[in-house]
This record gives sequence, C-alpha cells and structure tokens, in this order.
Amino acid sequence: MTTRPGGRSARVRDAVLDAVHAELTERGYPRLTVENVADRAGVHKTTVYRRWGSVDVLVADALDRGRDVDWPAPDTGAVEGDLIALATEVVDAFADPETRAVPIGLVAAALHSDRAAEAKRAYYDARHEAAAAIAARGVERGELPPGVDARELVRQTCAPIFYRVFVSGEPVDRATAERAARAALAAARAGVF
Amino acid sequence: MTTRPGGRSARVRDAVLDAVHAELTERGYPRLTVENVADRAGVHKTTVYRRWGSVDVLVADALDRGRDVDWPAPDTGAVEGDLIALATEVVDAFADPETRAVPIGLVAAALHSDRAAEAKRAYYDARHEAAAAIAARGVERGELPPGVDARELVRQTCAPIFYRVFVSGEPVDRATAERAARAALAAARAGVF
Repeated sequence: MTTRPGGRSARVRDAVLDAVHAELTERGYPRLTVENVADRAGVHKTTVYRRWGSVDVLVADALDRGRDVDWPAPDTGAVEGDLIALATEVVDAFADPETRAVPIGLVAAALHSDRAAEAKRAYYDARHEAAAAIAARGVERGELPPGVDARELVRQTCAPIFYRVFVSGEPVDRATAERAARAALAAARAGVF
Repeated sequence: MTTRPGGRSARVRDAVLDAVHAELTERGYPRLTVENVADRAGVHKTTVYRRWGSVDVLVADALDRGRDVDWPAPDTGAVEGDLIALATEVVDAFADPETRAVPIGLVAAALHSDRAAEAKRAYYDARHEAAAAIAARGVERGELPPGVDARELVRQTCAPIFYRVFVSGEPVDRATAERAARAALAAARAGVF
C-alpha cells in the first residue's frame, strides 16, 4: 500500500472516513460498526480492520482528518461580532444533523476509548489555537485588555452551548450563541481571565 | 410486588440502583450490563429485565433517584462565594472516581437512549432550580441586578467545567472553578443575562 498523498492509500482513507461520517449522520455512534463502514466505503472489511482495528480508531482518525482541515476564525472587524460568529457556528453545527454527528460521535467515542479521547483533545486544541486569533485582534484594536487569556475567551464563548447540548439537554438557538459570546466578552473585559 | 415506600419493591430498587452506581464506578458505562447489575445487587436478572428492561433505563432510574435527593445550594453569605462553592462541587465531583461516574454515565447513556436523555434533562433541571436560590439571595443583598436570569447564572458557572471534561478533554481544578464562577458573575453584573 502506498502512502504518497493522493495515492491509493489516501483514497481508501478518504472513502472510509467519509463513510464514518455518513454512518454517524444516519445511524449515530451507538450503531457504528466496522462492517457498515466498510460496506458503505466499498472497501473489504479486513482492510478496514487491519488499518483501523475498531470503530473508536475510525472515529479518532475522522477527527484527525477534521483537525487538519484549515479553519479560519471569524473575522468581522470587531471582537463582539467575531465571538458571536464563533458561537453561532457552534449552534448551527448542532442544528444540522450532518455536522452535529461529528461532535456527538466524538464525545461518545471519547467516553469509550483513549485513542478517541486523544483525537478529541487534539481536535479542540487546534480549534482553540485558530480561534485565539480573535482575542489577538481584539487586543490590537484596544477592545480587550492586553494579556487576556485568548484560549479561555474561546472556551467561555463555546462552553454554554455545549453545556446545553451534552449536559442539561436544553435547546440551543441564535440567542444562546449571542448570550454566550457577550458573557465571555464581559468577563474578559472585567479582567477575569 | 408492593410499591409502598420502604417495602420490598423499594428495597430492590435501592439495591439495584446502588449496584448501577458501583458498576459505573468500577467498570464504566460501556461495560454496564443488566447481568452484572443483577449479580451485584443479589437480585435475579429476570427481575431486573422485567422492571427496567435495559441498562439505559437503569441509568435513567438511578438519575431519577439522584434528582429526588435534597440538594441545598451553597449558602456562604455572598454570591461570589456561593458560585465558587457551586463550581468547586462540580470540579470535585470529577476529581472523585465514584462521583464522576454519575455525570459521565449520564452523558453516555443520554447519547444512546431517549429515556436516559429525559432523565438527564430532569436531573439538571432540578439542580438549576435549586441553585437558582443563589441568584435570588444575591439580588436581595444588592449584589446582582434585579431581573438577573438565575438559571443562566448557574449554567454559565458550571459550563466551562463540563466543557473541559466532555468537550476539550482538558483538566479541571480549583482554579477552573474560581474562574468559571467569577466569569459568570462578571457577565451577570454587566447585565448580559
């Protein structure tokens, strides 16, 4: 099996990880199986077993691939607009059955497997790093105090949305996003982090 | 089977739900089975199947029982102290393998089953309701603006802790708790919610 980019190995990986995404979307993590993924990808199941071994490694690799996709943080020209746009992206992801399957599958897989938990950590670490640009620009424009914890601003902006989805089981909407963004900004401006 | 409180039915329920808690603590949700719960509780497995039917219903009923336990919100005499105490309770729950099994099992079960998701919603709804007393006392003492959203103050205080545990996979400690509490308070005082 070749490993050059765009080669057969890369095409098999893309087909299999696309199938993971589709299976998560249509059936959800609890019914994700190596067999179903292989069938959908048109790849022999022994190939999938040999390369990935289990559904948790499949989910982890799907996340590794997602982590490596270039994701530019919102850039609206003002920190409040950027944070609202960031929070709205998260809310919209949970409104769309296709995109919500990814964070939900991630959380479920991470509760089962260390490999998936590690992929989840790396995925969110990359997102925090990219979104930290929002705080850097805010400090430059004098909208935020110098020395603000850029990653904490990102966590605080997203946390109330994930809390509703995964913990309290309450609905999320655009108002949830705006409130979360404004709360994080108020805390940052008050010098809490 | 009798249903009077303290009767045989209630004793069986307590033994079975205690066994759910112990199994979650020792083996975790992915390896929770009706057989293991029945064995540990000293109850015939057909009894457990007949009354609960599945592990997800067992987890849901364990949560229903937890929801009905009287939980008084922290009352330190000041809203900041109350919120830090609340956030610290959450952090400490995740530091203790016994208590962390409950929210982790809940989240895992809710991803699998509507019945467990409903129990989780009801559990956190009861906690939000009880903790809303913190905001009511804060308003009375003039520490918070009248009309503050008491439940949102609770959500915002707890959300960054759960975000680290379930989403970003980052560690939580007392500093996480204090920062979350102070951020929520700053946002409330700024009139965000």
